[in-house]
Amino acid sequence: MQFDHVGIATPDAAALADLFSDLFDAPIAHEERFEGMTVLFLELEDGYFELLEPHEGGAIARYLDGHGPGIHHVALATDDVEAALAAAHDLDVALIDEEPRPGAWGHEVAFLHPKSTGGVLVEFVQH
Amino acid sequence: MQFDHVGIATPDAAALADLFSDLFDAPIAHEERFEGMTVLFLELEDGYFELLEPHEGGAIARYLDGHGPGIHHVALATDDVEAALAAAHDLDVALIDEEPRPGAWGHEVAFLHPKSTGGVLVEFVQH
Repeated sequence: MQFDHVGIATPDAAALADLFSDLFDAPIAHEERFEGMTVLFLELEDGYFELLEPHEGGAIARYLDGHGPGIHHVALATDDVEAALAAAHDLDVALIDEEPRPGAWGHEVAFLHPKSTGGVLVEFVQH
Repeated sequence: MQFDHVGIATPDAAALADLFSDLFDAPIAHEERFEGMTVLFLELEDGYFELLEPHEGGAIARYLDGHGPGIHHVALATDDVEAALAAAHDLDVALIDEEPRPGAWGHEVAFLHPKSTGGVLVEFVQH
């Protein structure tokens, strides 16, 4: 599989985007409001940082409360999220999403449960 | 810059490598003992997972004690770590490593301080 992005929980996506775009030469590729969050993609040569700033409750707001800002998940690109989920299930990996669901930027996404993947929250993403 | 790897703290690198190599089609590219850890690189199409299993004290052992297993850092590839550090310093980013130092797999590496980078531990790596 292919690296797609690292998802970062932040209380201030705009400020972090300013810094990261300079520091990593990673310009803003996409920005939207999605499920009560500002979601901002910064483009690396071969993938993205996804900055996630919650404006109301939800998983990212809870993450910020519990852990503080930082790396939230890693996403791998696949051309078939459904097949990737089925393969994960066959390996006895617990799924957060049993089916692909709409993600930011019009992607199809699904998350694996970190209890099965060494504490790593993994997202499959299909562009 | 280019994505290089996500570093993962784990109490059992061999078991996680078994799972990840199947789950992500990411075979083992390199394994070594480095600074009291097993360090194991799994190869994605465009980067790596770096699994870090400590066998004695150190930063990763402390991370496991404090946070449990999971994503520890993200690494970006550059062809000049020293220049990347100088640019980070000019942006008022706090550095953990003022100079590049030898990392696993013969790489030159340097870490930025997460207090300056939104809680994200960032490594620059030069192959």
